[in-house]
Amino acid sequence: MKNNTITSPKGFLAAGVHCGIKQSEKKDLAIIACPTGAKAAAVFTTNKVVAASVTVCKKHIKTVNCESVIVNSGNANACTGKTGEKNAQAMCKKTAELIDAKTSEVLVASTGIIGQQLPMPKITTGIKKAVAKLSNTEKSGTDFAQAIMTTDTRAKQACKTVNISGVKIKIAGTVKGAGMIGPNMATTLSFITTDVAITKPLLQKALKDAIDNSLNKLTVDGFQSTNDTSIILASGLAGNRIISKQCPRYKKFAKALLALATDLVKQMALDAEGATKMFTVVVKNAASKADAAKAARAVADYDLVKCAIHGNDPNWGRIICAVGSCGVKLNPAKLACSIGDVSVFKNGQPVKFNPKKTSKIMSQKEHTITVSLGAGTHSDYCYGCDLSAEYVSINADYHT
Amino acid sequence: MKNNTITSPKGFLAAGVHCGIKQSEKKDLAIIACPTGAKAAAVFTTNKVVAASVTVCKKHIKTVNCESVIVNSGNANACTGKTGEKNAQAMCKKTAELIDAKTSEVLVASTGIIGQQLPMPKITTGIKKAVAKLSNTEKSGTDFAQAIMTTDTRAKQACKTVNISGVKIKIAGTVKGAGMIGPNMATTLSFITTDVAITKPLLQKALKDAIDNSLNKLTVDGFQSTNDTSIILASGLAGNRIISKQCPRYKKFAKALLALATDLVKQMALDAEGATKMFTVVVKNAASKADAAKAARAVADYDLVKCAIHGNDPNWGRIICAVGSCGVKLNPAKLACSIGDVSVFKNGQPVKFNPKKTSKIMSQKEHTITVSLGAGTHSDYCYGCDLSAEYVSINADYHT
Repeated sequence: MKNNTITSPKGFLAAGVHCGIKQSEKKDLAIIACPTGAKAAAVFTTNKVVAASVTVCKKHIKTVNCESVIVNSGNANACTGKTGEKNAQAMCKKTAELIDAKTSEVLVASTGIIGQQLPMPKITTGIKKAVAKLSNTEKSGTDFAQAIMTTDTRAKQACKTVNISGVKIKIAGTVKGAGMIGPNMATTLSFITTDVAITKPLLQKALKDAIDNSLNKLTVDGFQSTNDTSIILASGLAGNRIISKQCPRYKKFAKALLALATDLVKQMALDAEGATKMFTVVVKNAASKADAAKAARAVADYDLVKCAIHGNDPNWGRIICAVGSCGVKLNPAKLACSIGDVSVFKNGQPVKFNPKKTSKIMSQKEHTITVSLGAGTHSDYCYGCDLSAEYVSINADYHT
Repeated sequence: MKNNTITSPKGFLAAGVHCGIKQSEKKDLAIIACPTGAKAAAVFTTNKVVAASVTVCKKHIKTVNCESVIVNSGNANACTGKTGEKNAQAMCKKTAELIDAKTSEVLVASTGIIGQQLPMPKITTGIKKAVAKLSNTEKSGTDFAQAIMTTDTRAKQACKTVNISGVKIKIAGTVKGAGMIGPNMATTLSFITTDVAITKPLLQKALKDAIDNSLNKLTVDGFQSTNDTSIILASGLAGNRIISKQCPRYKKFAKALLALATDLVKQMALDAEGATKMFTVVVKNAASKADAAKAARAVADYDLVKCAIHGNDPNWGRIICAVGSCGVKLNPAKLACSIGDVSVFKNGQPVKFNPKKTSKIMSQKEHTITVSLGAGTHSDYCYGCDLSAEYVSINADYHT
């Protein structure tokens, strides 16, 4: 059986356990280890209020030799002050002790409820339990993917293989959603492993570019959490000559990494809180790329559009409304919109279209809305998902 | 019985009828007339795609003598091109003929579905019917308020009386919501009548200031429609010496007008699509007034906050998340948040609070969330309402 998990690239062990942070029996602590040491790169939330785990991880990411990543779900360790920071540090220290590494060689991430201190005794026991279970099996990889989940309904995993100058390189990843997702990273933690040999700066660049064009294009509710973190570890064990410049080999790797991240982001969109489907908004003929991105996001963020998509309702008026409302340059006389391949609005006027066919397009797991602003030559896109009554019930009762 | 409707100030007649734009038996055409002529002022949507009615109304608002306002619901006459503009013009012309005025002395507004041409024969018949019914009774005023509704569940009306230098001035208004409501005017049409004597420029200033501090502070789903229009008509029949500068008499009038608009906006928030309650977000100690406004809006717009409020859940983490995410200056070590009078977060750390008491505060029809950014001395506020499953069902099925 093909191993599609983060233990698939050479050099990685993983584990996921239940230690009692969550009240249910669900897994809530996870660990990746790379005993031979990995190069690490990461991108973080740009929220001005960041979790203690993010503060600590930002320091440790500078390490030249990353040995492990320790993650918990069920508690975000955010808005927890100095105690929170000590606890995040303690998670790294405990893990380092058990795998015989330095504290600074361990990265940390948390996700879950904001504003509560971590239950450290439970976590310490959990780390011991997880380290004892570390292995390179598919089950361990999946245990990890399950242990980072919060309101996600299923684990999200993907693995790509790319041949670089005759050497088979693997890249695997897992991600958790599912609410508080705005562009510039969702409330997501994502962890990617690869066995490629690459320099640390290029690994960072490849990660940033991949995330910019995948996770950062997804909006579920337009906001960014305190904890968003994406980490990539490269063991360098694949056997390729090290990638040290932006050569064709780098580009091949970067392309595969983007494909992996896009695969993960689509899985995440489809499992967003209450979501039943996802969609892509493409904005064309904008005066600038920034305008195109802004308009695409305005459409994908607009609750009325998201509701219409939930109901398979080709209500293009709401799309036009969002675009007109978001402050970008547009030419009302040239404005156009399509849903899938059906033109519904052209030259600023409604087009007669087949509502049944259009509704059917919208009922798919994934469809594309295209808007043309008639104001220039730039394009960009954004991913979104529908808004359902379930989103409300999930989020009206999460805390108490 | 006290008449609280737009026919209460001296000089105004109104009517509201069903003419068949809506498939149901609900009223869908409304008219205000001021046979002695009124000064008129208006503010409009800033959406770059504007309805034909807005385009026409922007021309006619320049009239020195406004005789009437003709309004329809059920069809927004937006994204309807040149035909739409001709139809909006024809609505004014028909009304003008019947009340013996010039076409340019009639203002026009529309609300409803985007992208369909108006059924002009029905509207023409409706205008005749409405003109025949014009009267200054309370019933006529309420008929008007009902006829401008779309997904509103009830008519929203208010009337204020203010004594200016011994003369009793009346200001009355009505407004319709209820979705597509973002600051800078909601998907709202609002119509205010007053018998004050005031110059046209001052009437415009008073209206703009009042709307800026009431309607423009409300966000239901963060977007602005193609049709938003607020019109005030002043008959000048109250008998006061004309207000022609920003004197204390002007200030008294402006204050009463703001009180009226605030009353209407609160009624609207409480009747927003699917809303069960409203809230005010006050942001203090911001680096600028713009930052304060931005942060307040970020909180009020955030679906997760709106869901938490729906569930009476004091989930302050989401409030902090919205504030941190929206790009304003803040001092994480000084950040604070209260729900009602309960401090839940202070100096960047959680405060122990009584969740039951806090939940009870949130269960009221109206409560206030206060956030202190610790970055300056500026304040601003925003109104919002909760997000319910009903919002989704209303908006997933509106069109088809």
